[in-house]
Amino acid sequence: MLRRLDSSLPEFRQQLEALLAFETSQDPQVEERVATILADVKTRGDAAVLEYTNRFDSMNAQVMSELELTQSELKAAFDRLPVAQREALQAAAERVRRYHEHQKMASWQYTEDDGTVLGQQVTALDRVGIYVPGGKASYPSSVLMNAIPAHVAGVAEIIMVVPTPRGEKNDLVLAAAYIAGVSRAFTVGGAQAVAALAYGTETIPPVDKITGPGNAYVAAAKRRVFGVVGIDMVAGPSEILVICDGQTDPDWIAMDLFSQAEHDEIAQSILLCPDAAYIEKVRASIEKLLPTMPRQEIIRASLSNRGALIQVRSLEEACEIANWIAPEHLELSVAEPQAWLPQLRHAGAIFMGKYTSESLGDYCAGPNHVLPTARTARFASPLGVYDFQKRTSLIMVSETGAQKLGQIASVLAHGEGLQGHARSAELRLK
Amino acid sequence: MLRRLDSSLPEFRQQLEALLAFETSQDPQVEERVATILADVKTRGDAAVLEYTNRFDSMNAQVMSELELTQSELKAAFDRLPVAQREALQAAAERVRRYHEHQKMASWQYTEDDGTVLGQQVTALDRVGIYVPGGKASYPSSVLMNAIPAHVAGVAEIIMVVPTPRGEKNDLVLAAAYIAGVSRAFTVGGAQAVAALAYGTETIPPVDKITGPGNAYVAAAKRRVFGVVGIDMVAGPSEILVICDGQTDPDWIAMDLFSQAEHDEIAQSILLCPDAAYIEKVRASIEKLLPTMPRQEIIRASLSNRGALIQVRSLEEACEIANWIAPEHLELSVAEPQAWLPQLRHAGAIFMGKYTSESLGDYCAGPNHVLPTARTARFASPLGVYDFQKRTSLIMVSETGAQKLGQIASVLAHGEGLQGHARSAELRLK
Repeated sequence: MLRRLDSSLPEFRQQLEALLAFETSQDPQVEERVATILADVKTRGDAAVLEYTNRFDSMNAQVMSELELTQSELKAAFDRLPVAQREALQAAAERVRRYHEHQKMASWQYTEDDGTVLGQQVTALDRVGIYVPGGKASYPSSVLMNAIPAHVAGVAEIIMVVPTPRGEKNDLVLAAAYIAGVSRAFTVGGAQAVAALAYGTETIPPVDKITGPGNAYVAAAKRRVFGVVGIDMVAGPSEILVICDGQTDPDWIAMDLFSQAEHDEIAQSILLCPDAAYIEKVRASIEKLLPTMPRQEIIRASLSNRGALIQVRSLEEACEIANWIAPEHLELSVAEPQAWLPQLRHAGAIFMGKYTSESLGDYCAGPNHVLPTARTARFASPLGVYDFQKRTSLIMVSETGAQKLGQIASVLAHGEGLQGHARSAELRLK
Repeated sequence: MLRRLDSSLPEFRQQLEALLAFETSQDPQVEERVATILADVKTRGDAAVLEYTNRFDSMNAQVMSELELTQSELKAAFDRLPVAQREALQAAAERVRRYHEHQKMASWQYTEDDGTVLGQQVTALDRVGIYVPGGKASYPSSVLMNAIPAHVAGVAEIIMVVPTPRGEKNDLVLAAAYIAGVSRAFTVGGAQAVAALAYGTETIPPVDKITGPGNAYVAAAKRRVFGVVGIDMVAGPSEILVICDGQTDPDWIAMDLFSQAEHDEIAQSILLCPDAAYIEKVRASIEKLLPTMPRQEIIRASLSNRGALIQVRSLEEACEIANWIAPEHLELSVAEPQAWLPQLRHAGAIFMGKYTSESLGDYCAGPNHVLPTARTARFASPLGVYDFQKRTSLIMVSETGAQKLGQIASVLAHGEGLQGHARSAELRLK
């Protein structure tokens, strides 16, 4: 079922590239339908949102107020939860909040000898939209991971949208919204929700940025409104790369691979290990444990489609391969994880040491679980407080400074043929 | 020529929205041609790049090496410059570098009571591509503003692409590349250059992120390769908003408005001022100075199309309007600029005090001149060192920590129906 590769073979690099290849081309039919929905919501506002929601989500709402969840509904959902879930949600939220506090950016300024002041002013976004998928992929942990960084950043209004097909609401999701500081919530989804957040309607206020995962329609809509509003990354399938020195219980590693594979059939789980005998132990664990998993069909499909057990020549080589893959989740299940950190340049998150299962990071370790996928960790970062803050450059040139800088600007502006720029600087010269 | 608005009139908000409206819809014909070029370069590499470059830029290159600028060519261009230009370029680069050093992000970690370590590792991108437009909008200052932040971030390889129609090279651009630490440079432009940087060819190495301005084809190509590589913002027309208390020489303000308007016919220059008499003085200065400007046709078109002199009720109201506009460049030409800063939430850069003409910031004050346009300063930041660094979350859970966190993760994972996640945490429980 699970392919085994060997990094010492000449065909390895080609095999690895084939394994990672993932078609992300945009479907023209989806594009066209999304373009229509966006234009319609932009023009007709609430009326269009109501129509699409009733049609796509089998709802029967007459007015927009039926599609708003009040704060007391959110609180009621929280109060209804079993105590263990309530406490787990609160404990997770508290840890996520504490970690994200470390990410807050601060403004700075410095003054030069001639009195010129330069700096950077950091401010929060005014209002953001959080997209939360409905149905089977409706995750309360995603609500926490999107809303808490925005809240920590100081965003004044956090608007959540979550589709509720046939009116079915998920108490855990509503409770998470209550804990995470969501300001308003609407039971709207799809491209129509993205359009409403981007353009605003009579009822739904326009936001400055939209974050959160969604299906192909949501992803296409986010791409299209990018520029009108900010967006986070368009996420691909989830991935885990485990580097193991062969000293971790093979059952643990097998289950860690499952925990990614169970997301869906195109998720990716890969093990890199220098120890051939250990790799076979992990394979045996997989075969032993798989029949015990409720989601075994998905796991099996995912592991066969996109999984791999890869024998490497050394842990050094494992790090090099990891840098090339730039995985969303990297488990560094080795004896001295800190020692290997300097060699790892590209990963969304690194889970260090055998006790750090990736799933702890998904829920409650503290760092965000919204991470760059599909090799984008080469240039992208986890979702964070910094995604809900922005910077403004500050320049206050003194009269003396204007003399020195004006000369330089004048020469360069004339060199670019921009005389207005030049004279604007020259007018300030004595 | 230049429209005058009054914020106290009931139609003002509507007039302002009309003034700011800017059509950014994507041209389907451009989209289609760009999609073809991208696919072709992806498949055929160098051969396609050569063909498109010869066709679109009237070149006659037989092999890719003819399209590479060597380091000695860059240095020769620098050495050929008049001494005043050489010194101005060096002085600007030095100031830009010094400011950007302040933006470098550092890694951090903290340890919890049970020994669990959480943190964030900051690393530079490996390789980035800088797009530099050719022809009339070929600006050496843009080379500095894109390449220096990458260099300060620690990016190992900076690849510049710049089209040279009919083989015409711009010495200032080449000299700027030499000073700014560009590693390799190719005389290729358009969608074919973006494709080559994103996918790599036999000669041009694939990069992790592409920054820099370009025409509609370049913008469309960047949008399409987003995800394969990172991109910076897709820039709109340049804008300046001046808030003036009526105490600055009106000639200075007129010239500052010109300095933005001279970029092109769709650039936007707006003045907000509470003093009606002063506004008329600025209008008189505009009429007096405009005939003296070499680019007066462009300036006149820009001011008539998209410019405005707006009388406001107070400087407080001017700040509110500025927040709504979220301008790329905000000149705060008032007596006590620091006092107004807390009221300004959204702007790309703020130029404070009457000596700080926007053009000083364009060239040499230090901060970046690549700034969010078209109201995107509501959620976006100037180009900076942080655009060439990224973060990796670090999680190292202790054996004790795994007990506490495992319980929480288990409850939440079961709540989401993800048993693999739950069991992966549970296996680490004693």
